[in-house]
Parts: sequence; structure tokens; C-alpha cells
Amino acid sequence: MDIKFIKSENLKTKPDQNALGFGKYFSDYMFVCEWDEGQGWHDARIQPYAPIMLNPASMVLHYAQETFEGMKAYKSPKNEILLFRPEMNARRMANSNERLCMAIFPEADFVQAVEELVKVEADWIPTAEGTSLYIRPFMFATEASVGVHPSKKYTFVIVCSPVGAYYPEGVNPVKIYVEEEYVRAVRGGTGFTKCGGNYAGSVAAQAKAEKLGYTQVLWLDGVERKYVEEVGTMNVMFKINNEIYTAPIEGTVLPGVTRDSIIALLKSWGYTVHETHLAIDDLMAAGDKGELEEAFGTGTAAVISPIGELNYRGHIVTINDFKTGELTQKLYDTLTGIQWGKVEDPFNWVRVVK
Amino acid sequence: MDIKFIKSENLKTKPDQNALGFGKYFSDYMFVCEWDEGQGWHDARIQPYAPIMLNPASMVLHYAQETFEGMKAYKSPKNEILLFRPEMNARRMANSNERLCMAIFPEADFVQAVEELVKVEADWIPTAEGTSLYIRPFMFATEASVGVHPSKKYTFVIVCSPVGAYYPEGVNPVKIYVEEEYVRAVRGGTGFTKCGGNYAGSVAAQAKAEKLGYTQVLWLDGVERKYVEEVGTMNVMFKINNEIYTAPIEGTVLPGVTRDSIIALLKSWGYTVHETHLAIDDLMAAGDKGELEEAFGTGTAAVISPIGELNYRGHIVTINDFKTGELTQKLYDTLTGIQWGKVEDPFNWVRVVK
Repeated sequence: MDIKFIKSENLKTKPDQNALGFGKYFSDYMFVCEWDEGQGWHDARIQPYAPIMLNPASMVLHYAQETFEGMKAYKSPKNEILLFRPEMNARRMANSNERLCMAIFPEADFVQAVEELVKVEADWIPTAEGTSLYIRPFMFATEASVGVHPSKKYTFVIVCSPVGAYYPEGVNPVKIYVEEEYVRAVRGGTGFTKCGGNYAGSVAAQAKAEKLGYTQVLWLDGVERKYVEEVGTMNVMFKINNEIYTAPIEGTVLPGVTRDSIIALLKSWGYTVHETHLAIDDLMAAGDKGELEEAFGTGTAAVISPIGELNYRGHIVTINDFKTGELTQKLYDTLTGIQWGKVEDPFNWVRVVK
Repeated sequence: MDIKFIKSENLKTKPDQNALGFGKYFSDYMFVCEWDEGQGWHDARIQPYAPIMLNPASMVLHYAQETFEGMKAYKSPKNEILLFRPEMNARRMANSNERLCMAIFPEADFVQAVEELVKVEADWIPTAEGTSLYIRPFMFATEASVGVHPSKKYTFVIVCSPVGAYYPEGVNPVKIYVEEEYVRAVRGGTGFTKCGGNYAGSVAAQAKAEKLGYTQVLWLDGVERKYVEEVGTMNVMFKINNEIYTAPIEGTVLPGVTRDSIIALLKSWGYTVHETHLAIDDLMAAGDKGELEEAFGTGTAAVISPIGELNYRGHIVTINDFKTGELTQKLYDTLTGIQWGKVEDPFNWVRVVK
């Protein structure tokens, strides 16, 4: 893919690396490419970060044909630019787009676009402890039409945001409310994709949990409302009697890159990992018996987020005395160590951007 | 609400009224209003139809916090501008926005905005048989942030499109494929709202049905995949042994304005209407026994769309010899007659725009 470069006349002042928050600042450039039926992808370019002009009838504003990805670039101690398994994001975005009948951006071009953009924005990759450059590829339907059908035009964009911790709590345990009223996903739906609709539908549950004093919700399956699926916008794992449980990838749960990496690490350390349906009643019972040793969410934004408390129908289980578990901490340290290029990468996950 | 008027310097040439299609042309003006946290709604205006500028990080492009409505304006034989139950669209949009944790546009202001816009665009209301001015109110999140939370900024827009029939078939029976792989909605989800995500998730099933030679899908419930819910983007009704069956409004099915009006008409004519869970097996059995007399979808865009064939697992039922049923036709004629101001309006549904 040939990517044109359009130079910016005004570069921004970079924010304080110690007060980045998450997704509040955006870098100087963005990658943009358009797709038209009959023409395919065209006009790939890295251009100044600028507003997008949309016809008010653009389908994305009405029917939410839109998907996104989330990934990060890191500066290694040797000052190299590192990406973490970007080919998995490229493939997942293709899977999301297939489900939503959208154009597919070729996976190799996806990785190339990310690499070229982070090279241009190398100075935007923060170096303070725990910071990185969050990369947000996203695609949306731009045909101007109010009939419901697959759009004949799409725009693919990648923007970058220097970030600190996703949760203000950092790597500290959070309180989780087990949600029974709202459902995130159901078999036959879009739960396995990163499409906008999944997130729009989830905000009400999050707002409810916050009102009740909880940081996020634990989602149950949409059919029986019995099995644990995800926590907030993350995959979720439980350590019970020294074995690990997480929901299987069967169409409702996001196939997380962090999830996959954590499972590989755990297996390499000799842990048994059950990708299975874990009933909320069994989980709470394990908590009551002291067998629920650790629990944590996994995702690109927060990496690992320990769970210190579960509330299911008023029944409260405190996990590991509301302290970050030993295995949780080891997973966080190892995975972020690999991602930041500070520890050995036995899985060959890290990609150095040349 | 005080609405500012910004005059357009260049009015468009109006399209041929006999070749409008659906949602392909847009009028000269649009209504726009913005909401900011702490400030509320501001800058209500009718302005020239123009592109919307969005920060690439605008939340609507990532998390699909977006809802819409669909309604129509008609020219009566007396050359009055008519709306059909616009207060129901105002209320439903408020309900949709509440579910998605979006700002609520006051219902009276919604109706006022629609009225003022259609008055400005009176010349855009087509008068040829079966045509109308389709009105599309929609709202979307504009805060520039990649964290998942309720947006702190929204834009509410209303655009107008002169339209003919929604389906190229017009009021003629269509073939419907009973969908078992994909699911449209589930209890606890967003099925009762007009949010973009519902539609993005439905496109794959529609595309599959078209590939198989069908116009649309019949959706089954997401839990048991047993009960009929909607057809394509419409509510659906079945006449079996002279009684009417349609899915109840319990969170998964859209509370359609046309659905509600059809039920009222049917009841006023003495029909028994069952708002109940109708199993697909019972429906197909009724078809086999010749008891399924008529079937049709209901919605603002197509008003009524007769169903001539159902295919469930290869089992095919033809309805009324693939001809539009007598009751279906009477409902279509009566409802469109009321909407176009050609027949009496005993329910006081029609609102004359003064």
C-alpha cells in the first residue's frame, strides 16, 4: 500500500506525561483511507489530525455500521518503538467488519498503516512509567442514504492518544456489580465484534453500577442470565482452587488480545485454564468458601484490572481481602514487561517498528 | 423553543416525483441543535443542509451512542401539511435516549422542530400517489473521547427526504426467510429502541436472506429462538382463523407507531388482537392447515408490507396464494387514507401543521 504523507503546519504542544488520563489528548497526525463500491480502498494518507466532514445522511450516524480496534505503541528502554501482536487486531477488525457486512481492510495494510503512523508520531509515545501511545483504528459507513443496507462507502481512520492508566484506581482492585437487568450480548448477535452498538448498549449498566458505588458490571449470558461473560469492556478471569476460569469464545465474548496472551502465559507457567461456562452461583459459592483466590479483567486499555469485590443480588464476596492477588500482579508485571520491552518475550509477540 | 432561521443561498432542483425511491434525495434545510453538559440544549436553528464536522474522536464514530426516528409529512387534498402522531415519535426518541444514557430532547420541542422544518420545506412534500416527505430526526454523541462513558455533548438533527415506496415491490407480497443464525434483540438489550446498533447488527441477516432470494428475514426471539418478533425492520402481524397475532412490547420489539395504529384500527373493526408470543412452529402449522390467512409487516417507511411466503428450515408456506390479503389491503388503504387526509380520522391521529 502506498501511503501519501501530508505535512502539518502546526504541531501541538504535548501534554504532561504524568497527567495523561485515558483518551483525552490526540496526536498531530491520523491515517485515513476511503473505500467505494467498485473502486475499493483508495487515497491512503497520513494527514494532519482534522475534523471529518460527514453528510448528515451518512449511514454511520443512523445505523451504526462502525467498528474499531484498540492497541498500543510503547518505547523500549533501547528507545525502539514496539507494537504488541498488531496482526491480531488486524484480523479481529476484519472479523468485526465481516459480521457487520462492511468493507474489509487488508490485514497487512492495517499493520503497515499502524507502523507508518507510529513512526511519524514517535515523539508522541510517552515514556513515563505505565504510559503508552494508545492507537485507535476505526471504520465507519459514509454512504448518504436512509435505507437500511450495507453501505457502499466507508472511511478507515487511525488516531493516536498518549495515555496513562485507564482506571483512575490504576492497578488496584475495583468493586464489581453483577448485572441482571441489562444484557451485553447474545448468541447470534455482535458480542464477539468491536462494533459501536455493543458499547452504546452497555453504558446504562455502567452508569447504574457507578450510581450504586461500583466501578463496573459483571455481565451474565443473555439466554440464561447464569454464566459469567465479561466485566465492563474487558474479558474476565477467576482463579479458583489454583485453576483459572474464563468464558469461552463462542460468539458473545470478545476474543481479547490480552485474554489470549494471559492464557498463553498461564499455560506456560503450568496453570490449568478452563475456557468454560462458569455459573455465577458457583462463582459466589467459591467466594463464600474462600476458594475464589483472585479475579481480574483483561483488556488492552487497562491491561489487567484486579477485582476486589463482587455484589450479586446484595450478596457480597470480597476477593483476596481487596488486595491485588499475587498471580494477578505477576501477570501484569510480566505482560507489561514484555509489552514495554523490559523482559524476555518468549512468544515473539512484540513487533519492533523499523 | 426559539428556532433561528439561516437562509440558504442555493436551493436544489427537486427530483422527479415518480422516481423518488426511498431516502435518496434530501431537502434544502435541516434542523440542528446542540447539547452540552451543564448548558443543556442550545443554538436551535433551521439551516441549509450541510455536512456535519466531527472530531475523529467523536464518540458516535466509536461507541454508537446514536438514536433516530422515522416519520412522514403529507399534503392533504386541501393542500394542508399533515403529520401523523408526531408526539409518539417524540416520546419514543426520549425512551431510546434514556436507554442509551443520552440527553433527552424535550418532546414538545421535538414536535415544534418537526413542524417548523416541514413548514419551511413545504414545497418538498411530494404530491404524487404514494409519495410523502420522510422526516428523519437523529441524535448522536460528539464528545471527543475514547473512554467508554455517556457523552457530554450531543447533536440533534432533523433532515427531510421526499420518498416513494420503501420496497421496490410496492404494496405487493414479499418472500420472508425465517432467521435462526442471527439474533436481532434479547431481553435486557436495546431491541425496543431505535438505536443504530440494532440496525448495524441486522444487516448480515438481511444480506443472507437476499442471497437466498428473500426480501427480508423474520426474526425469532434471542433466548429460545422459538417466538416470532419482527420482520426486517418492521413489526409483524399474522391473521390466523380471523384473529390477529403480533409480538408483545416487552423490551425486544420496537413499539411501532404504525403497529399501534393498526391494532387500534383492527380493534375498532371488531377484530381480536393477540399481543402474545407466537411460536414459529405454530405459525408454520397454521400455514400448513390453511389457517394462516394473511401476514404483513408494519412500519413508517413501508406502512404495510404483505408477506406472501415464509421459509423456515426449508419448509415453505405460501400465504393467500401470494396475493395481498383483503384485510391487509383494507388496513393499508384506511391508514394511508387517514395519513394523507383523504378519509375520516376517528382517532384524531393527524396533526395539521398551521
